[in-house]
Amino acid sequence: MVYDLIIVGSGAAGLSAAIYAGRYRMRTLVIGDAFGGYTTIAGPIENYPGYRKIDGFDLMMNMRAQVAELGGEIQEGRVSELKKEGSGCFTLKTQNGKEYFANTVIIATGTEHRRLGLPNEKELTAKGVHYCVTCDGPLYKDKTIAVVGGGDSSIKGVNLAAEFAKKIYIIVRGNKIATEPINYERMQKLGDKIEVIFQTEVKEIHGKEKFEKVVLSKPFNGSTDLAVDGLFIEVGLIPRSELITMVGIELDERKYAKADAMMRTNIPGAFVAGDIFNLFEGFKQDITAAAMGAVAATSAYEYYKLHGDLCILHAKAPTV
Amino acid sequence: MVYDLIIVGSGAAGLSAAIYAGRYRMRTLVIGDAFGGYTTIAGPIENYPGYRKIDGFDLMMNMRAQVAELGGEIQEGRVSELKKEGSGCFTLKTQNGKEYFANTVIIATGTEHRRLGLPNEKELTAKGVHYCVTCDGPLYKDKTIAVVGGGDSSIKGVNLAAEFAKKIYIIVRGNKIATEPINYERMQKLGDKIEVIFQTEVKEIHGKEKFEKVVLSKPFNGSTDLAVDGLFIEVGLIPRSELITMVGIELDERKYAKADAMMRTNIPGAFVAGDIFNLFEGFKQDITAAAMGAVAATSAYEYYKLHGDLCILHAKAPTV
Repeated sequence: MVYDLIIVGSGAAGLSAAIYAGRYRMRTLVIGDAFGGYTTIAGPIENYPGYRKIDGFDLMMNMRAQVAELGGEIQEGRVSELKKEGSGCFTLKTQNGKEYFANTVIIATGTEHRRLGLPNEKELTAKGVHYCVTCDGPLYKDKTIAVVGGGDSSIKGVNLAAEFAKKIYIIVRGNKIATEPINYERMQKLGDKIEVIFQTEVKEIHGKEKFEKVVLSKPFNGSTDLAVDGLFIEVGLIPRSELITMVGIELDERKYAKADAMMRTNIPGAFVAGDIFNLFEGFKQDITAAAMGAVAATSAYEYYKLHGDLCILHAKAPTV
Repeated sequence: MVYDLIIVGSGAAGLSAAIYAGRYRMRTLVIGDAFGGYTTIAGPIENYPGYRKIDGFDLMMNMRAQVAELGGEIQEGRVSELKKEGSGCFTLKTQNGKEYFANTVIIATGTEHRRLGLPNEKELTAKGVHYCVTCDGPLYKDKTIAVVGGGDSSIKGVNLAAEFAKKIYIIVRGNKIATEPINYERMQKLGDKIEVIFQTEVKEIHGKEKFEKVVLSKPFNGSTDLAVDGLFIEVGLIPRSELITMVGIELDERKYAKADAMMRTNIPGAFVAGDIFNLFEGFKQDITAAAMGAVAATSAYEYYKLHGDLCILHAKAPTV
C-alpha cells in the first residue's frame, strides 16, 4: 500500500503529525508499537497547556480520535526495516512481514528506558524490577520499594507511589534531586516515608524467581545490602534510533537525530519529531512533542506538494 | 513589585510560559492587552492536539485557569516601556503608569493585522471595515461582504461567515487561494455564494459615516466599483516588535525577534515565545506557540537559578 505519509511512532509527536497531515488531506498511516508512547503511562498530566489535569491515556485517546476523524489510519506494529528507493519512495516492513510504501516518512520513535546493565536485571524485569514508578509503583501497597534515579519521572512516580507504599528509598548517584520544584515540594511533604540515599549506586541485583535485594556501592544504615519488595530503575532515557540510522539520517553525539527546526533531516522526504530529536536541549514534554509533530507534518506536506508521487509503481492506499 | 518572571502577552505562548513558570515556582506575572490573543477570536479550533474541537476562547480560559491554579498572576495592561538596568533587573511600565521589576522577561506579544494603508481605512474601522472574518463575519446576516486576502484565516472565516452572509467576494492579489486543503474543500462546497476575484487589489475605500464600497485595481463584472455591506481585510500579520526593539533584542529581516531554539535572545535574561519569533518558518499555530512558551519558561528558570535575584533593590512581590 502506498501512503502520502507514514509516521512511525504513535506517541504525542506521531499522533499530532497525523492530525496535521489529515488536515492537509494526506493519505496517512501511523504505525506504532506502543500506543500513546510514554504519555499513556505517565499518569495524571498537569502541564499540558489547555488541560488543568488529564490522564496521559485520555490525552492520547483524544489525539487518536482526532486522527481518526480526519481519516488517518493507526496500526499497531513494529517497523523493522526502512529504506529509500532510487525513485525517492520509502519502503517499510514490519516485524510481522507487512510491507508499506510512502512518499514521505516522519520518524517519531521516541526514547526507551536506560537499563543499569547489571546481571539479573533483564531476568527479573516485571518480577520485582520495573522501569516506571508511575505505572507500577501503585502495585506495591503497604510494601517497601527502592527507586534508582532522582529525575522528574522518578520523583513524580514516587509522589504517586507514596499513596500506597509503606516506605520508599530513592537511590541517587549524585548529591541532589533534579526535579521540577513543584514535584520536589510534594515529595518533601511526604516526610519520613521517603528516604533519599545520596552518592550511592546499585552494584548488584539479587533474586531467583523474584527480585530480593540490591547491593549498594557504599553502606547505608550499616549495610550495603538493601532488601526491598520492588526495585524501580529510572535512570534516564535513550533514543530509539534504529530506523533513523537505517535510513541514513545523521545522528548527533548523543545518538539523537540531527534535523533543523522544520524537522527536515539530511534525507529528503524523511522527517523526525518528538523525543528522538533534541531540538530543545533535552526539554521533552508532550507539548513540545505535539508541536514538533505538527511542524514535521507541515514539512512533509510541503515536500509532497513539490515532488508529487514518488511511489507511482506501487499500489495506492484508498483515498481518505 | 519584583517578579522572578514577567511575561508580556497573554496569548497561547504567554499563558503556556506562565503554566511552566508556575510549576518551577517562579513568582510570575503575565501582562497582556488582549487576553488569549488571536486564539480567543479564532472560533472553533480543530487542530489543537488533544481537543477534537474547542472554541478558542475556551482553550484560553482553560490555560488561564491552569496559570491561576499554579499561583501565577494575570493583569490586563499594555506595557509601554521595557528596559534592562545595569544590575540585570528589567523594569517595565504600563500605559496606565504602573511600574514592575523582573529578573527575567518573556516577550510574547505576537502579531497584529496588516493594514492596507489606504485613506479612510482607519476611520471606517468597525464601521463596515473589519480585520477578522471569523469574529465579525457572522454579524452580516443576509448581507454581502468582501474579504481581501486568500490565506488560512481568511478562508476559515469565509467558511463560517457563509452560514450567515448572502454573498461573499474574495479579493486575491495573486492567482490562488493559499489555505489548508481541509478549509479549501469546505469553501468549495459553498458553491455560488462565494466568488473569488483573482489578481485584483483594493485601491480605494469609500464611505462617510459608514463603509460603502471599494474601488478595485481592475474591472470585475464590468466595473471597478464593488459595493458591499462589509469589508474584511485579512492580508497577513506583522510582528508587534516595539518592546523587543526597545530592550535591544535583535530583529530578523522581517522584523521578527531573533532567538535560538531555547528562545534565548541576544539580551541575557530576555526570552521570546510565540508568533513574535519565526522559529518554524512562518508556521504559527496554538500548539507551536504553547510549546515555545514552555521552552521559554524553562530557559528563564535556568537563567534565574544561575543568576539569582538581580532586582534585589526593589520590593518583592508576594511569594506564591
